[in-house]
Amino acid sequence: MNAFDALMEFQRRTEALAQIAGRLGWDQETVMPRGAAAQRGEEMAAIEAVLHARRSDPRIGEWLETAEPPDAAGAAQLREVRRAWERANKVPADLASRIAQVTSEAQGKWARARAEEDFPAFRPVLEEVVTLKREEGAALAQGGDIYDALLQDYEPGMTGAAVAGLFDAMRPRLVALRAEILARPEPAGLSGQFDEQAQMRLARRLARAFGYDMNRGRLDKAVHPFSSGSGADVRITTRTDPADPFNCIYSTIHETGHAAYEQNVDPSLALTPLGQGASMGVHESQSRIYENQLGRSRAFTGWLFGQMREAFGNIGPRDADAFHAAVNRVRKGYIRTEADEVQYNLHIFLRFDLERALMAGDLEVADLETAWNDRFRTDFGYEVDRPSNGCLQDVHWSVGLFGYFPTYALGNVYAGCLHDALRRAVPDLDDQLAAGDLSGATGWLRENLQRFGKLYEPRETIEKACGMAPYEAPLLDYLEGKFGALYGL
Amino acid sequence: MNAFDALMEFQRRTEALAQIAGRLGWDQETVMPRGAAAQRGEEMAAIEAVLHARRSDPRIGEWLETAEPPDAAGAAQLREVRRAWERANKVPADLASRIAQVTSEAQGKWARARAEEDFPAFRPVLEEVVTLKREEGAALAQGGDIYDALLQDYEPGMTGAAVAGLFDAMRPRLVALRAEILARPEPAGLSGQFDEQAQMRLARRLARAFGYDMNRGRLDKAVHPFSSGSGADVRITTRTDPADPFNCIYSTIHETGHAAYEQNVDPSLALTPLGQGASMGVHESQSRIYENQLGRSRAFTGWLFGQMREAFGNIGPRDADAFHAAVNRVRKGYIRTEADEVQYNLHIFLRFDLERALMAGDLEVADLETAWNDRFRTDFGYEVDRPSNGCLQDVHWSVGLFGYFPTYALGNVYAGCLHDALRRAVPDLDDQLAAGDLSGATGWLRENLQRFGKLYEPRETIEKACGMAPYEAPLLDYLEGKFGALYGL
Repeated sequence: MNAFDALMEFQRRTEALAQIAGRLGWDQETVMPRGAAAQRGEEMAAIEAVLHARRSDPRIGEWLETAEPPDAAGAAQLREVRRAWERANKVPADLASRIAQVTSEAQGKWARARAEEDFPAFRPVLEEVVTLKREEGAALAQGGDIYDALLQDYEPGMTGAAVAGLFDAMRPRLVALRAEILARPEPAGLSGQFDEQAQMRLARRLARAFGYDMNRGRLDKAVHPFSSGSGADVRITTRTDPADPFNCIYSTIHETGHAAYEQNVDPSLALTPLGQGASMGVHESQSRIYENQLGRSRAFTGWLFGQMREAFGNIGPRDADAFHAAVNRVRKGYIRTEADEVQYNLHIFLRFDLERALMAGDLEVADLETAWNDRFRTDFGYEVDRPSNGCLQDVHWSVGLFGYFPTYALGNVYAGCLHDALRRAVPDLDDQLAAGDLSGATGWLRENLQRFGKLYEPRETIEKACGMAPYEAPLLDYLEGKFGALYGL
Repeated sequence: MNAFDALMEFQRRTEALAQIAGRLGWDQETVMPRGAAAQRGEEMAAIEAVLHARRSDPRIGEWLETAEPPDAAGAAQLREVRRAWERANKVPADLASRIAQVTSEAQGKWARARAEEDFPAFRPVLEEVVTLKREEGAALAQGGDIYDALLQDYEPGMTGAAVAGLFDAMRPRLVALRAEILARPEPAGLSGQFDEQAQMRLARRLARAFGYDMNRGRLDKAVHPFSSGSGADVRITTRTDPADPFNCIYSTIHETGHAAYEQNVDPSLALTPLGQGASMGVHESQSRIYENQLGRSRAFTGWLFGQMREAFGNIGPRDADAFHAAVNRVRKGYIRTEADEVQYNLHIFLRFDLERALMAGDLEVADLETAWNDRFRTDFGYEVDRPSNGCLQDVHWSVGLFGYFPTYALGNVYAGCLHDALRRAVPDLDDQLAAGDLSGATGWLRENLQRFGKLYEPRETIEKACGMAPYEAPLLDYLEGKFGALYGL
């Protein structure tokens, strides 16, 4: 067997084992008996050790030296393997192991500190995490920018400077839009109680409508909605709240975007290094366009309004316009995960600037809470009332995720560009959406983006689908147009 | 780290990975999307390859050479590791791989042959399997008896001659009992329709009553009921049939016996080579005593009758005696898995004698169908009507399980002995059972047998619990007493 084939066979087995580890994660969040947690910890550690050994197997380096790709896809396979291999070899084993140990400890301390509204209790361990991640970034950067190096784990090819340029261009318009909207009267929300089984039935219907293949997946409940798995076994979860059906509906559509992307990767790439979404940002573009540009559009919510009245009877809004306003209501709030389309990106910009400064050494953990609260006041216009509504709200930094936050907003920017291109490609999109027919939209995304998996680099993936490089204007124009109409600006 | 500790740490990780493989099996039978089957095949192959590599890792042999057990339990740990290690090293790798390949093929051919009632279509591949298993047995036996060597995989310490002695002593009394019973009028069964959700609610109540810890397990539906996992995550499945609630009830109690055994192994043995049931036979003794000696007793069925009338209303039998007769109805039938307590062992004796003759070369596959049908006529008194009711009914031989069948009847024999000892230890057992209180029985089994896991050899495990070597009389006396009373013999 030649080196390329040997490497591909080796990787295929690694990918299969990684799928198993992912399935264990699904099991843990959905069906695992409560009393099995400690044993599951050992099981997860065992399979992670197997994966680690395979990913740092020196044969990979040998194969990479002589492997000849048979075609362009083969070259892309090698690119992905080489990226992971070089990354693994740049970070000293003892540093990787210290990061694993400290972040595991930090996550517990973060949860307690958040519950007790006590940032100082979290500060020492966060300082350790930041120090270790700076070290890791320096090892990866080899003289280059630390934050850029960390960003490659989530958005290969992107730089901190490029992200900053993009976000700085967006921020003034979003701050202004937000302020204008919040000066207007707030639209009414829904009223009533929403049977949770009926919510799950509707969630299943919506997942199918957005192209999710239940024959290669399933929908269950979990505390935090997620999508898990690749290829022929991609499972999603959602949650229900009897007072707020939008939580279930839009979590489901969001996770369907992630899951449909994984399901729609070309089957020939399954269980290969290219057999998944291109990056975190491109992944998020799919979940966001499903959820927002499609799922929260006037045309689609018109259809959804009928579905909801069928499922739940009188739900409050007198007509589809009022329902559309309720779906897209913009309200004050501290929490990123609860934010609407307008405010969401502002939450990200704040985190991006702070974490980039932390990695550059321009901000110390000791000053993080003040920096957060100052920036929040500047962009949102009011004071953070407690740490759990401020710099303790997200788990990310405690587990060492630096460079991850910007991918959420990049996903929104990409979704804006894709939405423009989709509108050009499917001129009668609104007619389709108004009939609850998502197939034109999801079919276009599948053909022009999803099926390629990691075949192209993230930016190239977006460019191929949109016919141009991603930039911020389509998203901003869309938001100003949509919310301008909704709020009469 | 000394050799013993190093070996134990290595084994612990292997056990954790084996638990993961088991959980994948559970997933496949309960929640896996249908379309994921092919990918799951690759995932299973990947983890099996990891397990195979670990189990044949040459370091095990090195550690075994110098490991000093710190205590008796440590010596038992080494005994189990050595047994598995020596077994793995006696069978040439290419033979093991041919067996894996041929049995995989044979299972598919068996399923088709059974569906088409065509034994000749199955015969060639079964001949291959038999030849390969003889080879494997010869490699394991190293000059000793082939069948004995294969039997060690399922019931360490047992020999074919000892099993034959036991079964030959049982057969005449069971053949006679069966004939006497079937000469009497058949008791009535249940009547009505039995809501499947109500069956599952009752099944959960029964599993808990028999000591199953739902905090470390769960009960789901599957096509074939099974118990899966060890330690803190032991899951069971059952099935429902709207016309036959006994299927659900006694499958649940049977699997609860297996699962409670695994759950009750001392936690200090979890994820070690001793952290599971002692053998297939001892495992079956737990499922059988839960299901039969306890679950089908007059005292317990009296309580169950009340529970069923509460759950389902009028179910047919006019009183608890008639219900007890319905539970224990003996009927003609061809199928082992549907057999009652009286006839079940006769099905096993037939298979044991035939498979032992096949391995000894005293019977050829060409003569198997005739030999089966002749023996069936002798013991059961009527003709096998078609191969799916005869020698094609069980999957076992197609997948290379030779030496497995006798453990079912050994389990019954052990259960008979344990039941005697339990009655002596808990004199008011019937009063407890009549109140639906299984805690005296299951507590005694936990303390005297289940908690030891594989600490003792199978026979020693039974002897320690019963205070005597296992023999057939308690089971036969119990069956003759119980069914003599039920049928007025």
